[in-house]
Amino acid sequence: MEALGIIVEYNPLHNGHLYHLEESIKLTKCQYVVAVMSGNFVQRGEPAIVDKWKRAEMALKAGVDLVIELPVVYATSTAENFAYGAVKLLDSLKVIDCIAFGSEEGDLEKLSKIADILLEEPPDYKRALKENLGKGLTFAKARELALVKVTGDESISKTLQTSNNILGIEYLKALKKIKSSIVPFTIKRRGALYTSLKLEGEFASATSIRKAIEEKGIKAVKNYVPDFTLKILERAFKEGQGPVYLQDFSPIILYLLRSGHPLENIFDVAEGIDNKIYKAASMTNNIKDLIKLTKSKRYTESRIRHILLHLLLKIDKKLFKEFDGPNYIRVLGFSEKGKTILKEIKKKTELPIITKVAQYKSKIEDSRMFERDLFATDVYTLAYKNFAISKLDFFHPIIKL
Amino acid sequence: MEALGIIVEYNPLHNGHLYHLEESIKLTKCQYVVAVMSGNFVQRGEPAIVDKWKRAEMALKAGVDLVIELPVVYATSTAENFAYGAVKLLDSLKVIDCIAFGSEEGDLEKLSKIADILLEEPPDYKRALKENLGKGLTFAKARELALVKVTGDESISKTLQTSNNILGIEYLKALKKIKSSIVPFTIKRRGALYTSLKLEGEFASATSIRKAIEEKGIKAVKNYVPDFTLKILERAFKEGQGPVYLQDFSPIILYLLRSGHPLENIFDVAEGIDNKIYKAASMTNNIKDLIKLTKSKRYTESRIRHILLHLLLKIDKKLFKEFDGPNYIRVLGFSEKGKTILKEIKKKTELPIITKVAQYKSKIEDSRMFERDLFATDVYTLAYKNFAISKLDFFHPIIKL
Repeated sequence: MEALGIIVEYNPLHNGHLYHLEESIKLTKCQYVVAVMSGNFVQRGEPAIVDKWKRAEMALKAGVDLVIELPVVYATSTAENFAYGAVKLLDSLKVIDCIAFGSEEGDLEKLSKIADILLEEPPDYKRALKENLGKGLTFAKARELALVKVTGDESISKTLQTSNNILGIEYLKALKKIKSSIVPFTIKRRGALYTSLKLEGEFASATSIRKAIEEKGIKAVKNYVPDFTLKILERAFKEGQGPVYLQDFSPIILYLLRSGHPLENIFDVAEGIDNKIYKAASMTNNIKDLIKLTKSKRYTESRIRHILLHLLLKIDKKLFKEFDGPNYIRVLGFSEKGKTILKEIKKKTELPIITKVAQYKSKIEDSRMFERDLFATDVYTLAYKNFAISKLDFFHPIIKL
Repeated sequence: MEALGIIVEYNPLHNGHLYHLEESIKLTKCQYVVAVMSGNFVQRGEPAIVDKWKRAEMALKAGVDLVIELPVVYATSTAENFAYGAVKLLDSLKVIDCIAFGSEEGDLEKLSKIADILLEEPPDYKRALKENLGKGLTFAKARELALVKVTGDESISKTLQTSNNILGIEYLKALKKIKSSIVPFTIKRRGALYTSLKLEGEFASATSIRKAIEEKGIKAVKNYVPDFTLKILERAFKEGQGPVYLQDFSPIILYLLRSGHPLENIFDVAEGIDNKIYKAASMTNNIKDLIKLTKSKRYTESRIRHILLHLLLKIDKKLFKEFDGPNYIRVLGFSEKGKTILKEIKKKTELPIITKVAQYKSKIEDSRMFERDLFATDVYTLAYKNFAISKLDFFHPIIKL
């Protein structure tokens, strides 16, 4: 049995994702595809446009055999934490042979070399990094220039500009760090950059697709997503279950900040960013403005969104220290073929497999991380117009295709 | 100097209020009018339709000389607490000679007799009350029947049906309890009942006016409110500062409940109502539905709204025990004539007068109650579309006419 692991968000699943999936299967010749997917909140530091079950359905329709949830603790954190959580989870399934990820770079060697340096931190790299930080550069810039210096390869600067390269490097770092036997592959991304806001070309980015949905409605994106995505989104919106935006949680986040809710236990809060956030919360009741008022070179929009989401979802930074990766396998959906691989995982993994959420307490020894997923769903459904019950994780059936 | 005290909400100020004010002045022949007014949240357990400064402006335009804020702790509580806070505050000004309140009853003697019994609780009343409670009647019903029994006056049942009679009785109770020298008067209310939902007749209720604004827009109420009210509301809405509804705080309240935020420190929470509220919060994300799912004969909509507001505004029940009425005089606005009476109050009162909020910490010994007012404003402005800054109490000028 040859199994391919992919790490996805499918927010929503579009033609570019479909291309990546098909190319990955072609390249790795794997028989089975297992996706680790963000749940109701995603790495951009936002809620997903529709919930995790609807996106799991898209994944299965696209040809994925098994969809496993990436715990919200990792899904809403830095690229490094996101990648570590996802790779560790894939590795702990004990059945994955390869990972294939999209990158703007497309050259695995090059990404791997960077990952090696970042992981091993040889003395000349460390020295250059320290020097650059001393000059007052941001960490990202200092790291980039140190990498260029020790490799003599100036093209690395460009490589580090795009988010899929950065994520790819983090996947490789994580694989090396945990000494995984999983073999990595990369597929060169085609079409728009991840962050592109324009809906154009053969493949549009998920960002531009969400933007078009928000501004022009679902019909506007029909050339950029598969039919099944369109249908799933249309059904969801009709039922009042999405589209969900960060804006929907604006009153809650602002309320927490105006209440003086502490930020000190949140990952990545340092250097007075907490006071800056509190101050901004006293100047506006709009989360977009709050982010604009707070961001800086050092604290990018995405870092601030992560902080605000961790506040909203009550994610304590100590979870990152006290857990070495996900300690459970939460199944969101599977295909007929997926049953076979799920059986195989059951035989081999040491982690509890959660298919019936009601049993989680007896199955997961330390369930603090899992309970963040449950709470994230309770918060997510506050943005629904219909069927906005809580504890949806307990009631929602696993998606089967 | 003869000064009249009135207790108001002006949510918004309408023709019936104007009539009450004019009649009260005629009846009491007072030279000055001081209003104790709810702030940004009102006794129905809701936010006011526009903020306290805009409503203070209405009061001054109507002929009130001085507007003092009723602390939110009292303004959003039971009729008994509301009345006690307001009467205690008026009494502590040391300049008020009379109070005039509207009532459906109109007969002060009758209301006063009821107040006496409720305050003194003679043995036969107590016995009848206990008996009725033993039969499983609600407290309100048990009290009503006990009053009828000891007075032999069956018309008391009808008297206790309407909210202004109930408030009036509470004002009288409070005056007696603190042995105030203030002389009470009552004006028979004309026109619609407080709770009437229909916009009709000479005087429409504030409830029906708010409903008409919500459903049909501001123009629909022009025959029922003075011109200045209409202008103030129009200006507020144009600036994105209202109309504010309980619904606007729905996500926050639901979030707090789904987070399992404790309810045990909230006034009036007993008999398992907390579990009922939590359960309802898991079934809907809409506060109107939540209230419908939770209310019962014993826990009326209004009691539940009070609980939800105290959760939202972080009002701990111990404040009611640890404070014997308001411990500060917060001035919201005054007329030219109001300056004279304010000077007089300054000479006579023992409470700190707050005209500059920035000085509150040095002026108020125990400022916990005042800080609830500040926080209530921070929460209130979350519902604004514009100028939604926090700490508005520090910046907003006193209204002067």
